[in-house]
Amino acid sequence: MNNTVKKYNLEGLHGDFKAGKLKKDYRTLSEREISHNKIVAGLEEAVKLSGLKNGQTISFHHHFRGGDYIVNMVIDKLAEMGFRDLVLAASSLTDCHAPLIRHIQNGVISRIETSGLRGKLADEISRGLMDIPVVFRSHGGRAYAIQSGELPIDVAFLGAPSCDPFGNANGYSRDSDEGVKCGSMGYAKCDAQYAKKTIIITNNIVHFPNVPFGIPESDVDYIVKVDEIGDPAGIMSGATRFTTNPKELVMAESAADVIEASGRLVEGFSFQTGTGGASLAVSRFLRDKMIARGITASFALGGITGSIVDLHEEGLIKKLLDVQGFDLKAADSLKNNRFHHQISAEYYASPQGHGAAVNQLDVVVLSALEVDVDFNVNVLTGSDGIIRGAIGGHQDTAFGASVAIVVCPLTRGRIPCIVDHVGCLVTPGKTVDVIVTEQGVVVNSARNDLRDKFIKAGIPVRSITELRKIVETMVGQPEPIEYTDQVVGIVTYRDGSIIDLIHQVK
Amino acid sequence: MNNTVKKYNLEGLHGDFKAGKLKKDYRTLSEREISHNKIVAGLEEAVKLSGLKNGQTISFHHHFRGGDYIVNMVIDKLAEMGFRDLVLAASSLTDCHAPLIRHIQNGVISRIETSGLRGKLADEISRGLMDIPVVFRSHGGRAYAIQSGELPIDVAFLGAPSCDPFGNANGYSRDSDEGVKCGSMGYAKCDAQYAKKTIIITNNIVHFPNVPFGIPESDVDYIVKVDEIGDPAGIMSGATRFTTNPKELVMAESAADVIEASGRLVEGFSFQTGTGGASLAVSRFLRDKMIARGITASFALGGITGSIVDLHEEGLIKKLLDVQGFDLKAADSLKNNRFHHQISAEYYASPQGHGAAVNQLDVVVLSALEVDVDFNVNVLTGSDGIIRGAIGGHQDTAFGASVAIVVCPLTRGRIPCIVDHVGCLVTPGKTVDVIVTEQGVVVNSARNDLRDKFIKAGIPVRSITELRKIVETMVGQPEPIEYTDQVVGIVTYRDGSIIDLIHQVK
Repeated sequence: MNNTVKKYNLEGLHGDFKAGKLKKDYRTLSEREISHNKIVAGLEEAVKLSGLKNGQTISFHHHFRGGDYIVNMVIDKLAEMGFRDLVLAASSLTDCHAPLIRHIQNGVISRIETSGLRGKLADEISRGLMDIPVVFRSHGGRAYAIQSGELPIDVAFLGAPSCDPFGNANGYSRDSDEGVKCGSMGYAKCDAQYAKKTIIITNNIVHFPNVPFGIPESDVDYIVKVDEIGDPAGIMSGATRFTTNPKELVMAESAADVIEASGRLVEGFSFQTGTGGASLAVSRFLRDKMIARGITASFALGGITGSIVDLHEEGLIKKLLDVQGFDLKAADSLKNNRFHHQISAEYYASPQGHGAAVNQLDVVVLSALEVDVDFNVNVLTGSDGIIRGAIGGHQDTAFGASVAIVVCPLTRGRIPCIVDHVGCLVTPGKTVDVIVTEQGVVVNSARNDLRDKFIKAGIPVRSITELRKIVETMVGQPEPIEYTDQVVGIVTYRDGSIIDLIHQVK
Repeated sequence: MNNTVKKYNLEGLHGDFKAGKLKKDYRTLSEREISHNKIVAGLEEAVKLSGLKNGQTISFHHHFRGGDYIVNMVIDKLAEMGFRDLVLAASSLTDCHAPLIRHIQNGVISRIETSGLRGKLADEISRGLMDIPVVFRSHGGRAYAIQSGELPIDVAFLGAPSCDPFGNANGYSRDSDEGVKCGSMGYAKCDAQYAKKTIIITNNIVHFPNVPFGIPESDVDYIVKVDEIGDPAGIMSGATRFTTNPKELVMAESAADVIEASGRLVEGFSFQTGTGGASLAVSRFLRDKMIARGITASFALGGITGSIVDLHEEGLIKKLLDVQGFDLKAADSLKNNRFHHQISAEYYASPQGHGAAVNQLDVVVLSALEVDVDFNVNVLTGSDGIIRGAIGGHQDTAFGASVAIVVCPLTRGRIPCIVDHVGCLVTPGKTVDVIVTEQGVVVNSARNDLRDKFIKAGIPVRSITELRKIVETMVGQPEPIEYTDQVVGIVTYRDGSIIDLIHQVK
């Protein structure tokens, strides 16, 4: 018996119609939309119907980013209903989830799985809030863990900007412009598919059939209509911003030069730019180079931003594969552009062996909190040891892209960003090909092919130890962070193996 | 362990990257497209790689209808490779599959599952060709059997009009107009998702990413490139034709009158018209009524034809949910129209309990070979007891639609079509609401609500016994068909229960 059988409970159905247990329904579509649908009286009713029990795993997506109301709304309700010891498996958590602290203290939430943590919740967890460490997974790693049964989900609570009365849900509605939008619901697709029960929470019930859908009705059990699912301003901001920081612009231009010199800037190339000022700004410089060379990209991948949409609408990028939209322009483009395609976290990045889109990346440009002399990257913890980031697709795209470029300044203020050893290992150095700083470029010794090309192109190639020395000269050797023996975070690699532990800050 | 785990073989992967077993790939996308993809040397190679063994189950779709080259090509190859006792599970089989007779005789194929059979293969099977009866399933019933594990597929051989080198396949390509088209690949989606191994057979390798895709790369193991996958003329003809037969036109107009009188012809109604001259022609008469009333349909479902596309493009049908395209216009519309959406057999019609689109039908118009006085319908065997049809979505839509209309002439030539007992029970009478003939309309006694409306609207309502008597007067009582004790076909209801047996014709 497989998961699907369990979820659909197919065994009980055999012969039901012949036995007279199933009745043909004579109502009209519009009558059924009103009276015979999956919409239940409220969240409490949906939770009861789901059969959720203490100790089980509940899941959430983070497509509403900093504007998310769903996680807090649901956990408040579960606390009120007296649930305890729940495992919260979110695709990511942000600043707005600080109210979870109380629920952790009260024993409602006993364990968390997420791609990242930020703000007060992250602070408290870093300082030992939880008895059981948080498990961090990349976006591809999470899809893989859900598929493989390593992360079984009992009940998924999925906010959706549109849903018809039978459960076809999406991050927008091609029919109507009412309500909030989040664009792609790529991370939520796996949850809906594999959870034993799936509850859609929406403020916007639209007519059947809500096509295109991100989540099909066949994956949905109950629908809850609420007044608000999120703050549009928070949903559409998040990790992206367009930089005016001169250092970031220097690095972005340098990254674009590196891409050109790598020989990958040819007709049909593919790329992804991660979040973070410099890596987002790269698209601006790539645009000029693409026009100058008269070439187009075959596709751009990942979190899609308005600046990527601009290139698409200009004809410079043929197709967009969108697992997550970062702004309103991205959401509108997904709604309107016929080569802008919503993909699942699995399709994006799962290492399940049948291929994922990250494997077809020529180039990815990624950010970093820290990079060390072995090219290892930390995107999870700050120089103070406090959690303040997310793995996202970092591990997945670094592994998949044939040229993985990490953009990182030498220092941020008095904080060294090129270090001897990263405080937290997230992306292994052997998957990072090039590091771009504001004072030159470093090439992984495995990639002498690139090194030679960069030198030929006049790109300032430095050694990592050289840069490390400059950093030390600039800001000295930082005081080592003092940790306790308690583990507060387990960092997994995308294949599920443990790659590092995060300890409690003293 | 669930099917997905088995298919993806996830267990072996844990820690592989850290253990150095997985290497980052430095090739470019265009290099990978050529040299590092899922395309294998040929069909034989793909079969070997799939691990197919004697006695296992292989599956096919019927989106190429009468123009299909895939089934014969694959079975010829498997015969040549010495395979025996295979179970052939096709979504349907047609006239062009007569070469299977030889492979059944030679023991290559020992069992068949299909929605229907036609032509010489159907004749031979009706006369006792196979030792094990053929299992007939509706389109929804097949999806359900595959999902539930009742019909486990070892290797799916899926012809695709476009496929990129990593397995994203579709029934057309939004990029290119080369190659044949079949439109939707709705029936093939379940096979790809649930088969242990999936092989795509295509004549048209396109660049990655082939979006939109009908089948994602994550469901594909191997790709075989061949010169031809089907005959475009045969792919785009099939069961559909636009009738000029006066009797069919009378019935079509009467069916449209019935729909109007039923009160279902209101803004936002939904409908499906099945194949067969009269039921296809209904859309022509509906169009006029919709324009006169100034209303639009919310969606049309099922096998989509050019005449349905016309109504969509005219703005009379808002959305098309397309599990199968019947002609070039339907394929082009799926490619170009943003509210024309490809759906899977599961989404279309599976009785798995989470809802399917058939459940939202207000009206379906279906054909019949025979209808009996209990409203039971036969769409599988002729008056001679020979198999000459397919269940298709008949059972599924009759159950789902709140008004299920069966269009059936009293006689075809000297053959009675209204009979005492159907020769083969396919769709139970209690799911059939109205029978439309050229000499009046019959209403199921469970639907006196409709009966009253029809009479009020001046529609000639007759009783089924009255019509049966007229038929007997016209063509007499036919000679009973002589059968042997051998069962040649098992007819299942959509929930998997056995609803009838087809016996060998003497």
